[in-house]
Amino acid sequence: MDTKKDFMRLRGRLKEMLQLRSAIALASWDQEVYMPPAAAESRAAMMAYLSGEYHQKLLTLDEDGLLSALDTARTKNTLKPKEAAIIRELVRDHTLAMKLPMPFVVEFAEVTSRAQHVWREAKGKNDFALFRPWLERIVKLSREKAKLLGGAKPYDTLIDIYEPGATSDELSITFEELKAGLVPLVAKIRDSRMRPAKAPKGTFPVADQKRFLDFICARVGFDTDSGRLDTATHPFENAIGPSDVRITTRYSETDLWQSIGSVIHELGHAMYEQGLPAEEAGTPLCEAVSLAVHESQSRFWENMVGRDKDTWRFFYPELKRRFPQNFKDYGPDEWHRYLHVVKPSLIRTESDEVTYNLHIILRFELEKELIEGTIRVKDLPEIWDQKMQEYLGVKVPDDAHGVLQDVHWSAGLIGYFPTYTLGNLYSAQLNDAIRRDMPDFDTKLSKGEFLPIRDWLREKIHRHGRFYSAGELMRRATGSSLSVQLFLTYLNDTYSKLYDF
Amino acid sequence: MDTKKDFMRLRGRLKEMLQLRSAIALASWDQEVYMPPAAAESRAAMMAYLSGEYHQKLLTLDEDGLLSALDTARTKNTLKPKEAAIIRELVRDHTLAMKLPMPFVVEFAEVTSRAQHVWREAKGKNDFALFRPWLERIVKLSREKAKLLGGAKPYDTLIDIYEPGATSDELSITFEELKAGLVPLVAKIRDSRMRPAKAPKGTFPVADQKRFLDFICARVGFDTDSGRLDTATHPFENAIGPSDVRITTRYSETDLWQSIGSVIHELGHAMYEQGLPAEEAGTPLCEAVSLAVHESQSRFWENMVGRDKDTWRFFYPELKRRFPQNFKDYGPDEWHRYLHVVKPSLIRTESDEVTYNLHIILRFELEKELIEGTIRVKDLPEIWDQKMQEYLGVKVPDDAHGVLQDVHWSAGLIGYFPTYTLGNLYSAQLNDAIRRDMPDFDTKLSKGEFLPIRDWLREKIHRHGRFYSAGELMRRATGSSLSVQLFLTYLNDTYSKLYDF
Repeated sequence: MDTKKDFMRLRGRLKEMLQLRSAIALASWDQEVYMPPAAAESRAAMMAYLSGEYHQKLLTLDEDGLLSALDTARTKNTLKPKEAAIIRELVRDHTLAMKLPMPFVVEFAEVTSRAQHVWREAKGKNDFALFRPWLERIVKLSREKAKLLGGAKPYDTLIDIYEPGATSDELSITFEELKAGLVPLVAKIRDSRMRPAKAPKGTFPVADQKRFLDFICARVGFDTDSGRLDTATHPFENAIGPSDVRITTRYSETDLWQSIGSVIHELGHAMYEQGLPAEEAGTPLCEAVSLAVHESQSRFWENMVGRDKDTWRFFYPELKRRFPQNFKDYGPDEWHRYLHVVKPSLIRTESDEVTYNLHIILRFELEKELIEGTIRVKDLPEIWDQKMQEYLGVKVPDDAHGVLQDVHWSAGLIGYFPTYTLGNLYSAQLNDAIRRDMPDFDTKLSKGEFLPIRDWLREKIHRHGRFYSAGELMRRATGSSLSVQLFLTYLNDTYSKLYDF
Repeated sequence: MDTKKDFMRLRGRLKEMLQLRSAIALASWDQEVYMPPAAAESRAAMMAYLSGEYHQKLLTLDEDGLLSALDTARTKNTLKPKEAAIIRELVRDHTLAMKLPMPFVVEFAEVTSRAQHVWREAKGKNDFALFRPWLERIVKLSREKAKLLGGAKPYDTLIDIYEPGATSDELSITFEELKAGLVPLVAKIRDSRMRPAKAPKGTFPVADQKRFLDFICARVGFDTDSGRLDTATHPFENAIGPSDVRITTRYSETDLWQSIGSVIHELGHAMYEQGLPAEEAGTPLCEAVSLAVHESQSRFWENMVGRDKDTWRFFYPELKRRFPQNFKDYGPDEWHRYLHVVKPSLIRTESDEVTYNLHIILRFELEKELIEGTIRVKDLPEIWDQKMQEYLGVKVPDDAHGVLQDVHWSAGLIGYFPTYTLGNLYSAQLNDAIRRDMPDFDTKLSKGEFLPIRDWLREKIHRHGRFYSAGELMRRATGSSLSVQLFLTYLNDTYSKLYDF
């Protein structure tokens, strides 16, 4: 067997799959940003075709035993480390794909596609009963999916799709510890005698916001030769390839932080993708290792950098220059306090960094029990409302502002939510580690020297792709295993100063 | 044989090819409009892969005899007329593709891709000698291509790729007649005692131009639910599908007509694509019949409508409202005369509607002789300059403004140029026919009632796709065969009034 030749052949196949994936990413970006409305149906057909072709190529990757032969070489330690990692990860992807028969894949895609339409209608009409049969079907299909994929616990199997290696038992322990720290913290802030800061007043013309965002992008280290910023209904990051990473934001003429906060968040995602090794394009070494690690990048930039007092020492003068009227009777301290307003609320995507994870824990607990069959879909709204009262102390007025608020379940993404909180925990670990590595971290922020920070992340996280597992990568980068305490310490340090407790 | 079932199978294959074509069109649009620069290389790889897949599907369309079987049914008259047309045209496309062996296709693609880079450099450096060996190679490859495709005359074979049914003998007669009419007309205008009108003065902010263009697009009948207008270095129209037709323009802050003229031109192309029958998407019935007919649409809108006095009776007040300062001491008559300034010039793409076709005739004569071998590439610059002097009375200062000005030959597009002039001739035939069908045509223009005009074209041209041949379609639409006289009459009528001869 000629391993080198085999590897060349494999790379050829991966290159083809890469082209399809890039075309799908481009079509998906365009759909959200520039596609004229009447093209929706033909675009869906185009994307279904390209996705089908991609899936087919993944399924037939080992048709002639090429992948198996290379995997045998891997187990015999005859591959170089990078090659071994590529094969290990490809075998994982291929094995997962092979376990799902095509009729199941088609049914899952069709049901979730239609369920998303029904969910949108149900949310609009505030009518859970409309969505209920679809969610029941999706829970049933997800259990079936877990069974097809194998594993001891169905919910673990689903989580593992999005966050390889994570288990519900570990997550339960982690999330309990987190909840135990967050609930009293939220109470302390609520009971603080400090009055929450107000937003700067007036309107903020979109064109001026855009110019300010371009300034942030350039300064922070987003490479606009290899990416761009556009407008969309929901902010997102979409990598067509490491040399073509696109982010979007949305603008509110009255809420300036909406665009700034979302851009800094998406920049974190984008710089991860731009930092992947382009020379490995097509292989798992040029792919993000996990959703949680991806989220750790966006959250680190959004919260640990984007809300930081020193960061705004640098950006505030430019902010004031752009919006002199709005910031006339308003100072940098008030802006900093405004970015740290904590208010238990109904909607996850609008929640602050302190209460956010309580929204996630609630969802984790619910979907775990749904998959395990210990609660039923019909009981969801009631349990949702109880938990919201218990964890956040808020009363849910209707299902549109409760159990119907997220698209995820309708899209079949059960097991996805926990990655958001894992990402938040990781972001605090990174924050802790980088501050140890860079004693002048705060000074750097205040001088607008963000490139060394980006490059630290590039070195520790980005350039590795899927070479290490997510857990191993984070241990190497931060020196510690998954930690709740570092996150709670970060929150307590930050908010005790601001809320004086 | 079950013809109905066979046809269903064929439609399935065409649908797949359609998805690839749409993805290529989207990638190509994005490349010119929004793609970040560093993505050029990976984008080229993506497009090469998708194009290769498409080509492969075309080549294997009859692998199992499906297309042949349906073509037999067609010759036995057992297909419905539309089905028969689909098969006839597919057989044409498939036969052409099958005649070119893959190594030849790859060589042609590689040589023309590199030649375009060399051409760009040669044009920049005004160095024909740099480009010469590449053009020699392309002429040789084009002869080889013609030989592979078969046919009595190599140049006819090349023309037929772009304009099915056209022949060099017919074109020679047509173009001689045209030249005989144009040269004296240009002389009359040159010798007129009327002074050419001046452009409106001052600068025209791009944002205001864009708003005015949006007004034109909506009014003329471009469906922005199924299309959009963006900015690019070179204006173009690109149809991702009939429900997704995109046009671009470029802006000059000092030359208002640059964006307006090009948008009205591209609108003509775009409305053709939007008028194709979407229910036939993937089949030749949802494709434009020929390049000349496509160009007839853009030129009809640009020249016969877009420069018309009555059209500007409607648009002028809005123009003045948008740009009050620039049009303060300027009237609609001067604007109308400005849109009809005739000035023999060096560059085809910047030339007026009277002299334009002399640029094309020159190119036609040259490429015909190049392919026939009666002139050599090395003699091109000299002959070019002689003909420019003879036909247009202008002296070519250097090759960058002469033989090196167009991208076409470097891209291997020999046989393409004549379609521009055929399109111009067709546009005059359409103008003649629609004015006969709509006695109140001028009134409609002056009231801004463009939709009936668009719908006349949709009924006569757009909806037919490739059902008829280009010639047959034009005969049915206009009642006449290809006519030089109608075009000359249009020009003489228009310009004799303006230049008083």
